[in-house]
Amino acid sequence: METEIVDVRGHIIDSLILPRILDEIVDAGAEYEIQRFDIGRSHDDQSFARIQLSGERDVLDRLLSKLADYGASPPEESDVTLVSADVKGVLPDGFYSTTNLVTEVRVDGRWIPVENPEMDCAIVVEGTHARTIPMSEIAVGDRVVCGHLGIRVHPLERPRSGTDAVFTFMSSSVSSEKPQWLMVQRIAQTARRVRDEGKKILWVLGPAVVHTGSIEAFTWLVQNDWVHVVFAGNALATHDAEAAMFGTSLGVSLAEGIPQEHGHEHHIRALNAVRRAGSLKAAVEQGIIKRGVMYELVTHEIPFVLGGSVRDDGPMPDVITDMLEAQRRMRAHVPGLGMAIMVSTMLHSIATGNMLPASVATVCVDINPAAVTKLSDRGSIQSVGMVTDVGLFLRQLKEALTE
Amino acid sequence: METEIVDVRGHIIDSLILPRILDEIVDAGAEYEIQRFDIGRSHDDQSFARIQLSGERDVLDRLLSKLADYGASPPEESDVTLVSADVKGVLPDGFYSTTNLVTEVRVDGRWIPVENPEMDCAIVVEGTHARTIPMSEIAVGDRVVCGHLGIRVHPLERPRSGTDAVFTFMSSSVSSEKPQWLMVQRIAQTARRVRDEGKKILWVLGPAVVHTGSIEAFTWLVQNDWVHVVFAGNALATHDAEAAMFGTSLGVSLAEGIPQEHGHEHHIRALNAVRRAGSLKAAVEQGIIKRGVMYELVTHEIPFVLGGSVRDDGPMPDVITDMLEAQRRMRAHVPGLGMAIMVSTMLHSIATGNMLPASVATVCVDINPAAVTKLSDRGSIQSVGMVTDVGLFLRQLKEALTE
Amino acid sequence: METEIVDVRGHIIDSLILPRILDEIVDAGAEYEIQRFDIGRSHDDQSFARIQLSGERDVLDRLLSKLADYGASPPEESDVTLVSADVKGVLPDGFYSTTNLVTEVRVDGRWIPVENPEMDCAIVVEGTHARTIPMSEIAVGDRVVCGHLGIRVHPLERPRSGTDAVFTFMSSSVSSEKPQWLMVQRIAQTARRVRDEGKKILWVLGPAVVHTGSIEAFTWLVQNDWVHVVFAGNALATHDAEAAMFGTSLGVSLAEGIPQEHGHEHHIRALNAVRRAGSLKAAVEQGIIKRGVMYELVTHEIPFVLGGSVRDDGPMPDVITDMLEAQRRMRAHVPGLGMAIMVSTMLHSIATGNMLPASVATVCVDINPAAVTKLSDRGSIQSVGMVTDVGLFLRQLKEALTE
Amino acid sequence: METEIVDVRGHIIDSLILPRILDEIVDAGAEYEIQRFDIGRSHDDQSFARIQLSGERDVLDRLLSKLADYGASPPEESDVTLVSADVKGVLPDGFYSTTNLVTEVRVDGRWIPVENPEMDCAIVVEGTHARTIPMSEIAVGDRVVCGHLGIRVHPLERPRSGTDAVFTFMSSSVSSEKPQWLMVQRIAQTARRVRDEGKKILWVLGPAVVHTGSIEAFTWLVQNDWVHVVFAGNALATHDAEAAMFGTSLGVSLAEGIPQEHGHEHHIRALNAVRRAGSLKAAVEQGIIKRGVMYELVTHEIPFVLGGSVRDDGPMPDVITDMLEAQRRMRAHVPGLGMAIMVSTMLHSIATGNMLPASVATVCVDINPAAVTKLSDRGSIQSVGMVTDVGLFLRQLKEALTE
Repeated sequence: METEIVDVRGHIIDSLILPRILDEIVDAGAEYEIQRFDIGRSHDDQSFARIQLSGERDVLDRLLSKLADYGASPPEESDVTLVSADVKGVLPDGFYSTTNLVTEVRVDGRWIPVENPEMDCAIVVEGTHARTIPMSEIAVGDRVVCGHLGIRVHPLERPRSGTDAVFTFMSSSVSSEKPQWLMVQRIAQTARRVRDEGKKILWVLGPAVVHTGSIEAFTWLVQNDWVHVVFAGNALATHDAEAAMFGTSLGVSLAEGIPQEHGHEHHIRALNAVRRAGSLKAAVEQGIIKRGVMYELVTHEIPFVLGGSVRDDGPMPDVITDMLEAQRRMRAHVPGLGMAIMVSTMLHSIATGNMLPASVATVCVDINPAAVTKLSDRGSIQSVGMVTDVGLFLRQLKEALTE
Repeated sequence: METEIVDVRGHIIDSLILPRILDEIVDAGAEYEIQRFDIGRSHDDQSFARIQLSGERDVLDRLLSKLADYGASPPEESDVTLVSADVKGVLPDGFYSTTNLVTEVRVDGRWIPVENPEMDCAIVVEGTHARTIPMSEIAVGDRVVCGHLGIRVHPLERPRSGTDAVFTFMSSSVSSEKPQWLMVQRIAQTARRVRDEGKKILWVLGPAVVHTGSIEAFTWLVQNDWVHVVFAGNALATHDAEAAMFGTSLGVSLAEGIPQEHGHEHHIRALNAVRRAGSLKAAVEQGIIKRGVMYELVTHEIPFVLGGSVRDDGPMPDVITDMLEAQRRMRAHVPGLGMAIMVSTMLHSIATGNMLPASVATVCVDINPAAVTKLSDRGSIQSVGMVTDVGLFLRQLKEALTE
Repeated sequence: METEIVDVRGHIIDSLILPRILDEIVDAGAEYEIQRFDIGRSHDDQSFARIQLSGERDVLDRLLSKLADYGASPPEESDVTLVSADVKGVLPDGFYSTTNLVTEVRVDGRWIPVENPEMDCAIVVEGTHARTIPMSEIAVGDRVVCGHLGIRVHPLERPRSGTDAVFTFMSSSVSSEKPQWLMVQRIAQTARRVRDEGKKILWVLGPAVVHTGSIEAFTWLVQNDWVHVVFAGNALATHDAEAAMFGTSLGVSLAEGIPQEHGHEHHIRALNAVRRAGSLKAAVEQGIIKRGVMYELVTHEIPFVLGGSVRDDGPMPDVITDMLEAQRRMRAHVPGLGMAIMVSTMLHSIATGNMLPASVATVCVDINPAAVTKLSDRGSIQSVGMVTDVGLFLRQLKEALTE
Repeated sequence: METEIVDVRGHIIDSLILPRILDEIVDAGAEYEIQRFDIGRSHDDQSFARIQLSGERDVLDRLLSKLADYGASPPEESDVTLVSADVKGVLPDGFYSTTNLVTEVRVDGRWIPVENPEMDCAIVVEGTHARTIPMSEIAVGDRVVCGHLGIRVHPLERPRSGTDAVFTFMSSSVSSEKPQWLMVQRIAQTARRVRDEGKKILWVLGPAVVHTGSIEAFTWLVQNDWVHVVFAGNALATHDAEAAMFGTSLGVSLAEGIPQEHGHEHHIRALNAVRRAGSLKAAVEQGIIKRGVMYELVTHEIPFVLGGSVRDDGPMPDVITDMLEAQRRMRAHVPGLGMAIMVSTMLHSIATGNMLPASVATVCVDINPAAVTKLSDRGSIQSVGMVTDVGLFLRQLKEALTE
């Protein structure tokens, strides 16, 4: 049985941080004694706790690394431990696994911020720069942060008021039984604030945007500068081209709603036509595609990344078929984002959610509650979900942004 | 092994009636021989088939009763068999179990229509009148149709075009991946036609109408004469009163969306206040309830039936706590209906669906696909489903009806 | 601005009670100052906090009543306020609305326990007895607890270990992605403990028990003394009788799985046959029903309550068609229950969940996650959910109880 | 207005083929006249119809291509039209888009079968060989079938009896309210038949196999020769390695069921360990992975394809990150398959479903009904779905295969 000390400071009671810390300790099989406790006497004061942990050495080591995520660190300050990677694409044992929260590391006695917070990554330090890096991008010789010393994580405290609080109620629990129009208005409000702050809005789109007849509403969003980056898959681009060329989506007429058996040929013919043109941009320029989501993105010069998947037909010539390359392209668009709106695509939503720092306001809209909860279960704690119909949602968001 | 002959006539191939008849025969373990077949040469011609069945006597008897639902009857015409009920609330053995389709019975050599087609009922003949009657309403001495002779059922043929065809595409399969705005417009179109024909529109409402903040949209529908009868349960009236009195629904502020723990007291206090007033009407007159769904129904004198359930708190004084009485009150509103719109209530939707003739255009709107499919699985073949968010649906329907 | 003082004691940090209290205060728009705070120094010690609240009078009043649910009460002790009911079925204004937690009220200087804790009820005091009572059962002259003074509620603290902890992990979040066999074993373990303690196990059953072919597994449970009370609706009894008489459920052969169109007649014929017999018991005695769920209950003399609903066909003669009477019969079975297992019926599960004290271990099994979450959203905090298939669940539970 | 003639022969009424053909004609806006109709007089006889179509030239052309999928072709026989591809990865305009049904093409007056039926592909003819080819694999000069002449498709007729009929009832509609144990037994029966015929069983696995604690059951299936090929993604292999190394899945202890916050590090550490080993096989050989799904596959030398996706962490060194390469590897395993069992993975199920000929018995097991229906909506008509819990399903399948 050994002991360690950690300090934690902040709104640690009403933001549930202290209870969670105590939970972690007990769950890990260790014991604690609260040595000092200065409680914030009123709502605006911070509290401070010094906690002594006792347990087996390896239990304590794991625990210290976990508690760091709650901002609870040993009071004595020390530098991070750096170990050089010895194999390409492989991390040293004992590497520190990141969260998506704001993080600092102590190098040569100075605390430096980690660039691009992203969960499930490692931290590489180069001179006075620290940045997250996914396992697959590690080069031999990269100096990787290991262990738990010299790392400070700033947990999100729950906002009580102000512009961020508008989101809070939506995050409480996922349900379709909520005042939906109110939620749409709050999303519109956040989008406005984000744009006013000069940050970008990312949209992650599934093909239901086309199936539900929402192209017109999305077109309006592009034309009115509410769309700054788009991530999607082959299906969105394909059915969008199908709609532009044949007026159908998965063979269902968007004007009549009548499903046509074997209308599935349409999407194959649309794929072939764009492949012949060479790219979506070329297809737009050659007049093959004259309307739709991709048409708007191309003509408004809005960057997009189309990530492939194993179920793709075709695929569209713009689709990136190598997954590591697709992730690289997506990551390159993360800096500068203020908001991410994910619509009807579990695959791309989780892929994107994995990459975003917790500071990006994230909205996941899906008619399937499982898709919405899955995102937050995977660790995207800043995300809020809305269980609703995509087709009607986009129309109503347009209305809320017009008001 | 015995044999029987049935004739069937109509668009029996392209409305799938003939294949289904052959299916039934084989499924029943009988055999068939098609003795005559005059196929409609083009799309507008009727076809005719005479089919000989062979099998055990009891198999044939069951089969004849089934085939009658498809309009396939023995060519020789005979009167129905009538057996007097000997026990209150109990049918004679061998009673004919009804469908919700237009049905005729032959009494004294004349075909008379059965009033109020309703599924899972019996048919009682009194003089030259025939009407459906649920098992629980049978009186001793009622003359009940038994067996399968002398019964003609007119199956719904799938509409190809015209005003009814607008519904067809929606019935094909239940999915959230459909052009939703188009569907809303089709529902609006049907509502217009029904009202123009002088028929009534029934709404069946679940409490999600309140939870999703849709009171305002529904209010508009009442005020603009799109609502002629309402069926609901205690929960709708309770949370509507809660919203009128406290601004919350299940304790969630409808203006702020913030769920308040223990806000559940609100609905209990609202129930108590209306119980003290004596009825919803009295609560409106006494100024206790000044807005909301029930307020609009009371002030516009729109009839409503609130059917109780075993999970009710309170309940509201207007709630009918005896289920057989609730069914009687609901049935009384069925004649004259042209359309039924069911919103977010599986219990009341199925209860209502059970009572409606197949000729009433029925729309079931729910975010849960299971609720939507359950209705048609239970035999309401004329119902179409829309998997969508109720809150946004009502707002958009208002928009579609305004256009 | 006025002030009040409340004290709270217990494992108030790691059971999240203190953070929730502070939440409530801030949400209510009041302010707090923590005047004294004795933190439990190690895991087994209790903590104590004295909190001063400031705010408008009416805010404080509402807040005091809410905080009482967390066991936070004014330090000075006073008796409850009792107000006599003046109208049958109506509570005095300002009545105290109950939780399902263990509650005490102070009458004439003595704390007395409230019998039958049930949420959304009132408390009536008669001499030295206090009991919960639903609004509809209030008689003129009943002395009803009002306000918030003299009421002590004992919040559930999260179990850390021992027999109750087996449930904890299941309550964390509802998902189908959990180790299911482990969960079945934990449920079996709890059932064993409950039976060993001489308490009863209540089953709440939906008709899916029949549809999914689980009669055999449930029969085993009855025969081996794992079923002590059953609540269900008309549908369960009807389809069970249909299965016993025709071998089908909703017209689907349980031996072959082949859905038979118009097999729906079977359930109507089964209903008629049992109505003719006069009761399920009579139908069993007359040899009309020779197997199935109801057969086992009747022959093993296990009490059951069949609550009606507005969508019932028939109904079965044993079905209680008046909802208030059905609730009374169900309530009568609550004392002595140690566990409730709810299987595939949202309606009856919520009805039952409303009545159970928080001390009854409650398991809700449904393939629809919404049904599972709805129960806990409605306030049944002691309930744990399992999203799984009912048919396979019952077979596996049998296996787990056999081990 | 032009006219065309098609002939169709077979059980075209009771297998619904004729009604569907007439549907297609009317939906396309064309008209028909049935010129000859020889109806099968009894259940075992084939029927024959000769249908004259009238309509615009382009309508007729599209129609002829659609009708070919139902086996309705012009009576006069002609060779297929072959057009050489002029661009790599692009098909000639007017290419014939394939179904997954058995297909023949007429080349030089002889009907030759098309190898590897797969939907949404083209047909390339080389000498006397015809094979399907996906768009992306087309080379310049490939001779591609265009238009609709000289193509014969053999539609699946619904089996009435015998070993294949066991599947029929399951395909009728997707619902959790079915006799599940019966369905498990039917799946076991089909697996037995397929293995007896010397064909292979493919499993497509999602990570829920690990999350639900089903490794043990799947291990049994591998050890008893019920698993011959496996398709999965990075998540399955990752969480399986996590379970083998840490006893958790997504950080949830599989022995205790307790979710551990930050247990997500486990899967990252497992990924890193296997990446360091170089492959799953190496990790098994080095004793890093000593149990689990991948361990069994490696030690029993069962081939597997792990297809990457854009949301992958790591990924595992065996994961194929290029999607076109992953599809190629999967396709290589299709010949020889008799059955495919898809468990809890929408992405990989659809990817696989796209590749399978209609003759492979396909079972899709998922607790999400949408996942199950999506597969058949995408055109995998031979697939049957079972909405159930994966964890309990695999345990029960083991039991059914043991009997």
